[in-house]
Amino acid sequence: MTIRELILKNRSYRRFYQEHAIDRETLEQWVDLARHSASGANKQPLKFYLSCYPQTNAIIFPNLRWAGYLEDWDGPQEGERPSAYILILGDASLSDSFGVDHGIAAQSILLGAAERGLGGCMIGSVQRVKLQRELNLPEQYHILLAIALGKPKETVVIEALGPDGSIKYWRDPHGVHHVPKRSLDELIVT
Amino acid sequence: MTIRELILKNRSYRRFYQEHAIDRETLEQWVDLARHSASGANKQPLKFYLSCYPQTNAIIFPNLRWAGYLEDWDGPQEGERPSAYILILGDASLSDSFGVDHGIAAQSILLGAAERGLGGCMIGSVQRVKLQRELNLPEQYHILLAIALGKPKETVVIEALGPDGSIKYWRDPHGVHHVPKRSLDELIVT
Repeated sequence: MTIRELILKNRSYRRFYQEHAIDRETLEQWVDLARHSASGANKQPLKFYLSCYPQTNAIIFPNLRWAGYLEDWDGPQEGERPSAYILILGDASLSDSFGVDHGIAAQSILLGAAERGLGGCMIGSVQRVKLQRELNLPEQYHILLAIALGKPKETVVIEALGPDGSIKYWRDPHGVHHVPKRSLDELIVT
Repeated sequence: MTIRELILKNRSYRRFYQEHAIDRETLEQWVDLARHSASGANKQPLKFYLSCYPQTNAIIFPNLRWAGYLEDWDGPQEGERPSAYILILGDASLSDSFGVDHGIAAQSILLGAAERGLGGCMIGSVQRVKLQRELNLPEQYHILLAIALGKPKETVVIEALGPDGSIKYWRDPHGVHHVPKRSLDELIVT
């Protein structure tokens, strides 16, 4: 698969075949992709909390906010929830800033998932204080980003922005998730 | 090439065969990879300034700080400089925050380069005000990250941290660039 094919395949998925388990070894292989990705000043201040069992998944799920633009949808129902999570943490004992390291790491992880026909979603809207307490995470770790992972159970279509210029994604009556993307011309300044 | 092979190949390179040109179409194809990558709340507030000609390259180069840990090295000499740059800009008319969008985008761009046997380096240490003025970039654009690009002319080796635990990269007498990386075990919290 070319990197273009992989990136096109790597959509943000929010509904999954929950019964499709992802094992810990697989999560570790994806973290190893992040480990070999760039880090600002090579500080490598990120740590990773792995969850692939129902018990910890059930703690994480209610602390995430799903798909802000879908007002009538509170997130995936039981049976369509992620079968695993990777929480990206910033270790304050190693650095007081994390730059965009977690964005770089998350992209590497999700490309690793896409290559195996799996997928997920980066979620920045997290109830951090509550989740940190419920997982007994030491204070030195800051929850930077959650990545939900599973076997995707939805179709995601990229399309041009409509006449109103809205970038809000939407779901049609057939459950297809539509994502408006700005054109290449619009993104290039010179 | 698997994503693991591609990520391992994608080192931060700082010396290049400057005579190896990268054309504008290639830069646009890499921006198109970024365009299809995740963006927080799908806002897509990033814009891209492309440079692949000596004139604009010469404006950008002196505004970047290279390899902070190599104290005796001021950056690549003439002949080993990047043949192109992509500046990632945040468009303040579209969003007042850019999250880690530029990290995600930069990783997609550099993986696109690695696939073609090219490479580069994300540079966050930029003289932003001066560069913005010299390129006549409108105020609405914030320079978030510079990506230097070219055909790599150095060998980069990843190795375990030494007994002193230092993460500072270093260059040996043969010009090989050594990068200490934390172990996978160290990165995983549970």
